[in-house]
Amino acid sequence: MRSAAVVGTGLIGTSIALALRGRGVATYLLDQDPEAAHTAADLGAGVVAVPRAPVDLAILAVPPQHVASALREHQLRDLAHDFTDVASVKARPQEEAAALGCDLSRYVGGHPMAGREQAGPLAAQGDLFQDRPWVLTPTAGARRQTVDRVTELAELCGARPVVMRHDQHDRAVALISHTPHLVASLLAARLLHGDDSQLELAGQGLRDATRIAAGDAELWTDILGSNATAVADVLTEFALDLRVVVDALRDLGTGAPERHRAGRAHLTTALVRGVQGRGRIPGGLRLSGVSAGN
Amino acid sequence: MRSAAVVGTGLIGTSIALALRGRGVATYLLDQDPEAAHTAADLGAGVVAVPRAPVDLAILAVPPQHVASALREHQLRDLAHDFTDVASVKARPQEEAAALGCDLSRYVGGHPMAGREQAGPLAAQGDLFQDRPWVLTPTAGARRQTVDRVTELAELCGARPVVMRHDQHDRAVALISHTPHLVASLLAARLLHGDDSQLELAGQGLRDATRIAAGDAELWTDILGSNATAVADVLTEFALDLRVVVDALRDLGTGAPERHRAGRAHLTTALVRGVQGRGRIPGGLRLSGVSAGN
Repeated sequence: MRSAAVVGTGLIGTSIALALRGRGVATYLLDQDPEAAHTAADLGAGVVAVPRAPVDLAILAVPPQHVASALREHQLRDLAHDFTDVASVKARPQEEAAALGCDLSRYVGGHPMAGREQAGPLAAQGDLFQDRPWVLTPTAGARRQTVDRVTELAELCGARPVVMRHDQHDRAVALISHTPHLVASLLAARLLHGDDSQLELAGQGLRDATRIAAGDAELWTDILGSNATAVADVLTEFALDLRVVVDALRDLGTGAPERHRAGRAHLTTALVRGVQGRGRIPGGLRLSGVSAGN
Repeated sequence: MRSAAVVGTGLIGTSIALALRGRGVATYLLDQDPEAAHTAADLGAGVVAVPRAPVDLAILAVPPQHVASALREHQLRDLAHDFTDVASVKARPQEEAAALGCDLSRYVGGHPMAGREQAGPLAAQGDLFQDRPWVLTPTAGARRQTVDRVTELAELCGARPVVMRHDQHDRAVALISHTPHLVASLLAARLLHGDDSQLELAGQGLRDATRIAAGDAELWTDILGSNATAVADVLTEFALDLRVVVDALRDLGTGAPERHRAGRAHLTTALVRGVQGRGRIPGGLRLSGVSAGN
């Protein structure tokens, strides 16, 4: 890859541009907010300009709901030979792109599994994707060359390319990213009902459990809204599990020996399953403040 | 304080003993598991012996359900002039102690707001309580001298003593520690339904959101069971909030414009409230792996 265009110079777009510049790729920066693009350029992420000839690859780093229209627009203006995006949902943008008549042979959806709570180009890091999975969701109609190009992008950013079907991807992120985000948000929102003397007792456990809830509410509305059914399915199961432990706690609160025993058993089961589930997360530590893919 | 006895040389008991030894207090270690007591002694936490004369303060570092019986036993054998505990619930142990006929004038309940996922003496750290709140829940009948002694304990451990009523404490920890623990457990347990290809995409966000779920299931059954009603009350409200976002996601999944708009608004509201609630947690960073009070 010798040239690329990054459309959308937020956290992810700028981080990609920084990584590409570090590998010597000529990188053009486009953003509907010129200030964001110039900030990214000041960080060394590339030049703010529309390339005169099509670049090798355009990376659409816009929210999920704008991927299809951005793809349509930039294919019409012939911005690049090949296109990808970085949205954290894959099925709906692809359906929308098909409906808009985009050329899907020259597009492969992508999702780098990395992010931060902070948004915008100033939070960007050229090594944000280092050793992280980068999911590709090529359709059957995608050109081999386009798949290879997007694979190369992931590798240039230091990431591990992983090919999945788009529905497979969306169910996976519903489980490991979108549901955790919403649950953390609901947990954090409960704190609005506490008083200061209660909050003062909070420690690192609560901070960690709610850290992802600090993410941008508008962006996350887009993400969750674009993967609504898959997330609702996981949360519905979660709600059933929750119901069981609330009932168990009520049984433990009553004091009647038999219900007490049953409640205790249900509670222990839920906690043991939590320990087991936690144990399934692949190991490896990252710097504090760097989070799961959005 | 010149002498102390730590009953129960797990993580918390041994950490207290290490802190007291560091301040020159003669510290006796008692545990029904002699191996745990000797491990603590090998770490420099004190001597494994029953003191010949009553010590200044006995610290009952046993699970919540054993506080009352331990208090009764060690008051009868005259282990110390004054007594405290470190259990993460305060109302029920105190009621049980009253029912057993313990001398409550010489007992002040305590709860150092610090912990780790790892259990046992080998996980102990003498600075575990540094700058952390340490809640004291004296009853009206407690001697002034006992309150002062337990305050001194907290200070010798580098913690910030905070006086609260026991029911106030229990509602606070239900909100900032016990509910987050259970929610994190339920979230982690959902991962048992994922396959490896899904789990491989997990990042730091999921790891952080579920970290506390790794805590000892038996101990947490005791803790949650001892504070069951307060936790169930918070979780019941949480379940109502959850219902709202699941309905919102279902509306977003249907595609009907009006329901779509309403769903989006509900979702954004929930996420914004999450950001706000998260913002209420007092700042300050601690070393990774050190968690909120149990």
